[in-house]
Amino acid sequence: MYPPKPLILVSNDDGITSLGIRTLVELMQELGDVVVVAPDSPQSGMGHAITIGEPLRLHATEIFKDVRAYECSGTPADCVKLGKHYVLKDRTPDLVVSGINHGSNSSISILYSGTMSAAIEAAIEGIPAIGFSLCDFAPNADFSHAKPYILQLAKAVLENGLPKGVALNVNFPKKSDEPLKGTRICRQTNGKWEEEFEKRKDPHGRSYFWMAGKFVNYDEGMEDTDEWALANNYAAVVPCQYDMTAYQTVELMKQWQLEEIES
Amino acid sequence: MYPPKPLILVSNDDGITSLGIRTLVELMQELGDVVVVAPDSPQSGMGHAITIGEPLRLHATEIFKDVRAYECSGTPADCVKLGKHYVLKDRTPDLVVSGINHGSNSSISILYSGTMSAAIEAAIEGIPAIGFSLCDFAPNADFSHAKPYILQLAKAVLENGLPKGVALNVNFPKKSDEPLKGTRICRQTNGKWEEEFEKRKDPHGRSYFWMAGKFVNYDEGMEDTDEWALANNYAAVVPCQYDMTAYQTVELMKQWQLEEIES
Repeated sequence: MYPPKPLILVSNDDGITSLGIRTLVELMQELGDVVVVAPDSPQSGMGHAITIGEPLRLHATEIFKDVRAYECSGTPADCVKLGKHYVLKDRTPDLVVSGINHGSNSSISILYSGTMSAAIEAAIEGIPAIGFSLCDFAPNADFSHAKPYILQLAKAVLENGLPKGVALNVNFPKKSDEPLKGTRICRQTNGKWEEEFEKRKDPHGRSYFWMAGKFVNYDEGMEDTDEWALANNYAAVVPCQYDMTAYQTVELMKQWQLEEIES
Repeated sequence: MYPPKPLILVSNDDGITSLGIRTLVELMQELGDVVVVAPDSPQSGMGHAITIGEPLRLHATEIFKDVRAYECSGTPADCVKLGKHYVLKDRTPDLVVSGINHGSNSSISILYSGTMSAAIEAAIEGIPAIGFSLCDFAPNADFSHAKPYILQLAKAVLENGLPKGVALNVNFPKKSDEPLKGTRICRQTNGKWEEEFEKRKDPHGRSYFWMAGKFVNYDEGMEDTDEWALANNYAAVVPCQYDMTAYQTVELMKQWQLEEIES
């Protein structure tokens, strides 16, 4: 008996028809048995949203050749929950991968990212997980330079596992004439989106707003950050955890000595 | 000249008409000048979602007596962004508070919580922020026991500030006959929601799913966790950060020595 091939669950946030998930599915077929549960429509910017007030739909689809695949009405986190607890109830996946996202999820964007929420949801379930993103929003983005790195990382995670509570946030620079220089293991860049709201009037005279903004990097030039790696043509790998406790502040606040309240 | 009263921005995820935000607004009026920007409909479970693919609406409302208030079509994170960059463009708030949520946001629920995403969005903007939640989903929940603790914590944060990149996740036990024992500064409990999906048929014969589940506490009995504090009738305060880097895994993965890829 050969050992069974690894079972790999694939999701994303751009929706099941995107080129990014198609590319990822084809790559994962080289490594194991692939099952897809992905949103039936784009879910970008959904963060770690879940669907609790309304029911979910889940439909089998033959969109991928020789791959068991389902489209789901919910968020990326919903897809992983349904994949783990309903579709793959009898066998836990060996790896969950999410993406390839059309657009960056580096630095603070990890918080807003549906791609990464799928990976983090898998980590919560104790499954090694990786979210992949490309710094190119184009629907027909060129993922070719990222492919060997995605295979290498997925293989390495299948072999080594990941520490409990950790998922990987992997971003690739937009395809350019220069080949990628390699992989950098990084920390999350300290930065934020500086929002600007553009106010417009609709045809009925009522105002509405478009949110736009530019990224501000507070860690400019810091070589251990994911933004530096991307700007210097490396694949950027940030191991990230869902324990959000600020442990130093726990100790600090114990000194505040909040007095007892009579009641 | 007296120093100006602190400027306090209030938001939530249950929507601007909920009893929880009304209670929080009334409390904050004792401490400073209050401005409200809150969702026009419930946004529970929205995590750190933001609205990027469609426009936002923002309307002034007189729902609170003597308080400048706006209802917004977006998520809690959108509300804070609009509050900071549009409504309060000329003066940064001294404090952002979110809640009081009808329902717990302890342990892993912080990731799914719209209440906490408003607080974390404020932290990203460099503003001290607190999310308040009560372990009671009832629309007419009794917040009376939490009120003096909310005032105490908001005052303490206005006086001491918070470290950069940190917001507070504060949860209160459901009102009982016993008075609260005090405040505990805690870490986020390691736990997860164990999902069960209930499959039903709609009147047209098509299947749909309701997500339900029960909380599993991997830290049962650990006295430094927020779940322990709540179970023992304390207010649970978890300082949390948006830097999700798993620093130990950064060092670990550097040992993986991912070989260079020829391209």
